[in-house]
Amino acid sequence: MKILRTLLAGLAVLAAGLGTAQGADPLASWNDGPAKAGVVAFVAAVTDRASPDFVPPAERIAVFDNDGTLWAEQPAYFQLFFAIDRVKALAPRHPEWKTRQPFKAAIEGDLKALVASGEKGILELVMASHAGTTTDEFQQIVREWLAGARHPKYERPYTELVYQPMLELLAYLRANGFKTFIVSGGGIEFLRAWAEPVYGIPPEQVIGSSIVTKFEVRDGKPVLVRLPEMKFIDDKADKPVGISQHIGRRPIAAFGNSDGDFEMLQWTTAGKGARLGALVHHTDAQREFAYDRESHIGRLKRGLDEAPARGWLVVDMKRDWKRVFAFER
Amino acid sequence: MKILRTLLAGLAVLAAGLGTAQGADPLASWNDGPAKAGVVAFVAAVTDRASPDFVPPAERIAVFDNDGTLWAEQPAYFQLFFAIDRVKALAPRHPEWKTRQPFKAAIEGDLKALVASGEKGILELVMASHAGTTTDEFQQIVREWLAGARHPKYERPYTELVYQPMLELLAYLRANGFKTFIVSGGGIEFLRAWAEPVYGIPPEQVIGSSIVTKFEVRDGKPVLVRLPEMKFIDDKADKPVGISQHIGRRPIAAFGNSDGDFEMLQWTTAGKGARLGALVHHTDAQREFAYDRESHIGRLKRGLDEAPARGWLVVDMKRDWKRVFAFER
Repeated sequence: MKILRTLLAGLAVLAAGLGTAQGADPLASWNDGPAKAGVVAFVAAVTDRASPDFVPPAERIAVFDNDGTLWAEQPAYFQLFFAIDRVKALAPRHPEWKTRQPFKAAIEGDLKALVASGEKGILELVMASHAGTTTDEFQQIVREWLAGARHPKYERPYTELVYQPMLELLAYLRANGFKTFIVSGGGIEFLRAWAEPVYGIPPEQVIGSSIVTKFEVRDGKPVLVRLPEMKFIDDKADKPVGISQHIGRRPIAAFGNSDGDFEMLQWTTAGKGARLGALVHHTDAQREFAYDRESHIGRLKRGLDEAPARGWLVVDMKRDWKRVFAFER
Repeated sequence: MKILRTLLAGLAVLAAGLGTAQGADPLASWNDGPAKAGVVAFVAAVTDRASPDFVPPAERIAVFDNDGTLWAEQPAYFQLFFAIDRVKALAPRHPEWKTRQPFKAAIEGDLKALVASGEKGILELVMASHAGTTTDEFQQIVREWLAGARHPKYERPYTELVYQPMLELLAYLRANGFKTFIVSGGGIEFLRAWAEPVYGIPPEQVIGSSIVTKFEVRDGKPVLVRLPEMKFIDDKADKPVGISQHIGRRPIAAFGNSDGDFEMLQWTTAGKGARLGALVHHTDAQREFAYDRESHIGRLKRGLDEAPARGWLVVDMKRDWKRVFAFER
């Protein structure tokens, strides 16, 4: 049995190799152009043993921002919609929320008033909606929410709002020996609830913002309880810190879309040898959204200004992507 | 070229399968007995697709304490010897240390006085010796120290003081689709400097205690600077917290040796399905060291008392290990 399984596994590896050799394009949703060519040239350089830029597989670490890089982030971070729905679900137990901001705004679905409550208000909302459960319960809550919730514009599950070209890129890198990681400002446990089936990225390769958890024994059973206290905000200059803490070595490729990813790209591309930094530029108001320098969410200014001098690729969604979402015809 | 490489990889997989089938014992340094039998039965149960305890490869997570579980920890944690040597190296820049504890004790190599300085003293020593460099510099410092330092009893490099049966166990689990992680009270960056060549465990699968790091740009180059401030102590009830933070799912197997590992084993074995918890019991004064309930380092009391009722294996070094270290004849 064991030999048979091993034999089949061996054959599957061979078949996969032949499939690629026969020319199926692993980046079929990318238009030919500088972005696609840049990615392919980088991967060729670091995987060719004869290349001076060859990198051993163990060091082929690629990091990806999530919101706006792997899935959409407009008209607001999807996790904010989760927080709002969670506050609505918990509201019957909190009659005082009806008259207290930011909860009143959340219950009434008033996104403008919510944004007006500022960072402090948003944080208060996240705490109230993300803490107070065990880690196991929280994952279940996120999964149930994702199964029922729909994006306000596309009227589809949020997990269908992932970018098809980026899914292909993730698979392409993994097929070339890369380990792919998410490095997101979003909640680490929120992401882990669905990143594996959607992106093929296991929980141990997800880095994100976190709240404090505490080990407790309840009725003889050990649990980890989520407390309403921020532990780490995985954004800006703390993205390299999160990478260092979780991965312990410098990535050779980094993909982002906003100035919150600037330091992550800076850290990645400052290493020796071939490095790839790339920014997804939201230029397609028709198929997705168009925003950059002035946007409240996913603001991209410094990145656009400095990308050429730093040798970072700018992926122009409108120009470079044949398809944005898998559900497009 | 690609097809050739894939073909060779496929053949290597086949050869590995045949090698195992032909009966080479992957746990050759383990004596036959309940410990070895328990490990083998567990691995058989979770890897057999026909078994009710089958676990898909992605969920085969095994966690290992380091000090006293993968390598020795007597007469003191090896990282403490590193801290002492580092303080000695830095002493010329700190004349005030000559008369100030715990630095005076470290410089004079007075282990007793060091221990007498208590947790606060040890922490002060660790901060002075582990902070103030960049992450890249620190890894280099650890590697250089390991190349030159010798264990006081064995007079060998500390990296030779790893347990041969545990190296075999790590390889055996990985050959059966497990991902192996270190979950140590030791410093995460200290461990990452050598865990990959010594244990085959990459940096991203090392969890440990950490100090705060900060992103800075120095002369146009981004660096991560290590600050003298504790961030996380990965011990006791915080081991499950560290596991949750880094891995994001519950391990199915956990190996420890002291009561500092109790909660890690408790958390691991409380999950559904087949679980393995195991404690290395230091019973061999001749080949290694003998200590448990009363030891200052690696104290094992509650674990010994509760292991039978919890179904945890106790690995008796003297009885269960044919060899302790690879350098034994």
